Amino acid sequence: MYTVYGDVLSGNCYKIKLLLHFLQEAYEWQHIDILQQESRTSNFLEKNPNGKVPVLEYEPGEFLFESNAILHYLADNTDYLPSNKLEHARTLQWMFFEQYSHEPFIATSRYILLYLKGAETHKHILDEKREPGYNALGVMERHLQENDYFVANRLTIADIALFAYTHVGAEGGFELNRFPAVCDWIKRIQSQPNYVKIG
Amino acid sequence: MYTVYGDVLSGNCYKIKLLLHFLQEAYEWQHIDILQQESRTSNFLEKNPNGKVPVLEYEPGEFLFESNAILHYLADNTDYLPSNKLEHARTLQWMFFEQYSHEPFIATSRYILLYLKGAETHKHILDEKREPGYNALGVMERHLQENDYFVANRLTIADIALFAYTHVGAEGGFELNRFPAVCDWIKRIQSQPNYVKIG
Repeated sequence: MYTVYGDVLSGNCYKIKLLLHFLQEAYEWQHIDILQQESRTSNFLEKNPNGKVPVLEYEPGEFLFESNAILHYLADNTDYLPSNKLEHARTLQWMFFEQYSHEPFIATSRYILLYLKGAETHKHILDEKREPGYNALGVMERHLQENDYFVANRLTIADIALFAYTHVGAEGGFELNRFPAVCDWIKRIQSQPNYVKIG
Repeated sequence: MYTVYGDVLSGNCYKIKLLLHFLQEAYEWQHIDILQQESRTSNFLEKNPNGKVPVLEYEPGEFLFESNAILHYLADNTDYLPSNKLEHARTLQWMFFEQYSHEPFIATSRYILLYLKGAETHKHILDEKREPGYNALGVMERHLQENDYFVANRLTIADIALFAYTHVGAEGGFELNRFPAVCDWIKRIQSQPNYVKIG
């Protein structure tokens, strides 16, 4: 059975939980309190030398890190990961977009507001993240105006990766109602069988 | 024949060039001047709605973006991308590590110094990027003390992705001689057949 090391409120960790539920795979969840620096202990650094959650223990004592690489591992040979060469690369295209152009703005704003309660103390950082965060939502909106999902006309790990922090974007101060196609896509994912909420 | 839209001095673009040379694939290079905002024109945004280089035109009028997704597409079914499920995910693990924990610090510092000539004007930003940049190099060093390459004991796109900005880390103000295993790995890649320099 898989063990996931993570924080259920973290979107990066929730991605793994959501896919495991869609796949109906059994797993154990080991809570890591990032505010208590539990991802920086020497014990944890043996699992992920980069000191970040989530980590997947796919076999006893064997670990994989980076949320989107874990999604890829778990989705391999399932409908959630297209096997066609182009669709496979396209899935990864949106997952790299998520980690580079979306997460550092939308997830980090949420982290500051939700975990650090830093609306006042971190106002300058939050302000800097608004424009690139809205830009990422705009890129998604334009794609979703013409497509129900990101790749291959079905739910893949590209959607799961992007859904994790997008659907709680309001917690990072982003107004999602400015992006109606994104809102429809969020409802589409939430209505899937075996959908599970964050937390 | 492939067309690559990019700037030959950008590490993200160089990744694609280096792999195409290793694969001995023919390509055309279309220069995009990012300082002249050429990646933000409406014409370019039709290729990549996120307005970033590189973009691969894999068929006339068909485009793929995100450097590491392009590497995956080009390396599919070659020795540069392990097909084993775990090694495949492990390759992506290091590529996501590169985009999230390495590139935003090491590449961005180089961009500020090399493109913007901003050692004075951007001193505060450069200072902030030093610790996480050195942390990424430390994670690489520990892995390379025990392995010649990142995955599967051979050169893969994980190495190519990480090599692009690491080997020019000094241009971002990072002292690479503090990481002897990284320096040996750089020489190992530079001595490969069909290796081509950045630029």
